Amino acid sequence: MTATVHPLRPGAAPSLDPIVQLVAADLNKVNAVILERMQSEVALIPELAGHLIAGGGKRMRPMLTLACAALVDYQGARHHRLAAAVEFIHTATLLHDDVVDGSGLRRGRRTANMIWGNPASVLVGDFLFSRAFELMVEDGSLKVLKILSRASSVIAEGEVSQLTAQRRIDTGEDHYLEIISAKTAALFAAACRIAAVVAEREEEAEAALDAYGRNLGIAFQLVDDAIDYSSDAATMGKRVGDDLRDGKVTLPVILAYARGSETDRTFWREAIAGGAAEPDLARATDLLEETGALADTLERARLFGRRAIDALGAFPAGRAKAALVETVEFAIQRAY
Amino acid sequence: MTATVHPLRPGAAPSLDPIVQLVAADLNKVNAVILERMQSEVALIPELAGHLIAGGGKRMRPMLTLACAALVDYQGARHHRLAAAVEFIHTATLLHDDVVDGSGLRRGRRTANMIWGNPASVLVGDFLFSRAFELMVEDGSLKVLKILSRASSVIAEGEVSQLTAQRRIDTGEDHYLEIISAKTAALFAAACRIAAVVAEREEEAEAALDAYGRNLGIAFQLVDDAIDYSSDAATMGKRVGDDLRDGKVTLPVILAYARGSETDRTFWREAIAGGAAEPDLARATDLLEETGALADTLERARLFGRRAIDALGAFPAGRAKAALVETVEFAIQRAY
Repeated sequence: MTATVHPLRPGAAPSLDPIVQLVAADLNKVNAVILERMQSEVALIPELAGHLIAGGGKRMRPMLTLACAALVDYQGARHHRLAAAVEFIHTATLLHDDVVDGSGLRRGRRTANMIWGNPASVLVGDFLFSRAFELMVEDGSLKVLKILSRASSVIAEGEVSQLTAQRRIDTGEDHYLEIISAKTAALFAAACRIAAVVAEREEEAEAALDAYGRNLGIAFQLVDDAIDYSSDAATMGKRVGDDLRDGKVTLPVILAYARGSETDRTFWREAIAGGAAEPDLARATDLLEETGALADTLERARLFGRRAIDALGAFPAGRAKAALVETVEFAIQRAY
Repeated sequence: MTATVHPLRPGAAPSLDPIVQLVAADLNKVNAVILERMQSEVALIPELAGHLIAGGGKRMRPMLTLACAALVDYQGARHHRLAAAVEFIHTATLLHDDVVDGSGLRRGRRTANMIWGNPASVLVGDFLFSRAFELMVEDGSLKVLKILSRASSVIAEGEVSQLTAQRRIDTGEDHYLEIISAKTAALFAAACRIAAVVAEREEEAEAALDAYGRNLGIAFQLVDDAIDYSSDAATMGKRVGDDLRDGKVTLPVILAYARGSETDRTFWREAIAGGAAEPDLARATDLLEETGALADTLERARLFGRRAIDALGAFPAGRAKAALVETVEFAIQRAY
């Protein structure tokens, strides 16, 4: 891609290393909870769940809970169980997403639905989702339960909304942002917010962590949507152009469609509507480049990233804050 | 079917009328909660959910919560919201079940997955499931949340276990009873138990209502499994023989297989294993009759029904108890 690089911290290549190092000890405990609580006498459950849970995920959401807990100087151990609950909710949505999209590849491996079939993926997703609530109930905070049950409803609404928008080229940027705020950013926001809840911090701290997570989540999704059209998709373990084949109208397409000539718009309309022929991915990426749609999608991701970082303004400088800031920088620069 | 009728209350045809009349006013309030809380700005959600929720279900589980609340003389209004949560959990599992089984017909109407597709059914199920937890969080009882989150995990385990047992003729009666205890009876038990929780009754009352619901649930499922092979299936809005076509090993088949000649056992093995040909349903029902498998499935249902009624022993006689007893009688006699 030709988009210009404007790193927030010029000269350094941002990475997840700071957050990974910050939460390493805690994450081991979260992983122990995950491993213990995905067990079942029904052997297919840990087998299928383990395929995805052990399958190279970054544990981004639990890491955010842990890093935010460090930011607010939380000294207890409740965040281990709750971070595991967040990861279970996330894993359940991934299992169902792959069924919904008929995906065959995730993180470079065959998806669970390809190996064990859609029925098993649906039901094991339901199990993990229920287990997430059991973990929250064990923690015993109604406030946390409220935050995560609300996030779960919003995620499902976002997913249905995306399904409704599928193959509809008339999806606007605002509608698209609503969809990704719901399907992706709601869980990022909740994962961060609950750290302030367990630390019994004031509402302002909760709201600030929520805003950090929400804006980071939007930035993350925008970059993912750009990556789907870039050669980096292959290195991320996905197929390039899956969104186009699925008729998903993401921001790059929305911008390219808005800016295109009448011929270009006909191309997009037909590519998104689908039909007998495989869409012309080369032409699509050419148009995304020519119209600046990819570059501007990443520019918008940068904007949301800035808002995420600004949301941390009131928290004291230190290792946790630096790690959370660099996580944003990593999120918005990984596609460049 | 030729099984002999042995009604618990000779001379009367048991019906759901007593429980329906007992809870009518409360059920209106539950229905109002259901209608209000299945709404979403995403139009497909109430459309799809409404198809199933308004589609002629008996509201058996919410009625049980309400009737059990009457039995323990509960005077508040918390059970309305919680009964709606129970119905949402049930509806979510039905939506996912129909995807898992590829069902086309439920209660005589086309299934949601046939009308709106599997992806929509999976995601709207997720929404209703999340919404159920939001309702419980609003109620605010961690005890209720624990009971229903545990029941949800157990249901999912039961569903996966059934999936694993599918097309396996070597499924034994004990294993089968474990499966239906989990996938069906756990929610019946929880629906009844939470009535004692909101009424702040002692643990013994909770356990008794749990036992009532659990045994009733098992009886219900056993009768359903028998009905699947009877001409009554059509009147229930299902296709006769769906379980056999799906390779589901239910108690009638387990008993007929255990009692069959070597030729019969070969027939069952091949019918359950599936293959190119449609299974010979006429031969299957002949064998189920000849071996007494259907009659004995219903006899076992009667046994669990007796246990359900006995579990109510310590509660005072009255309209609520009579209604709960007759609900059991209805459950076990509707196939005769």
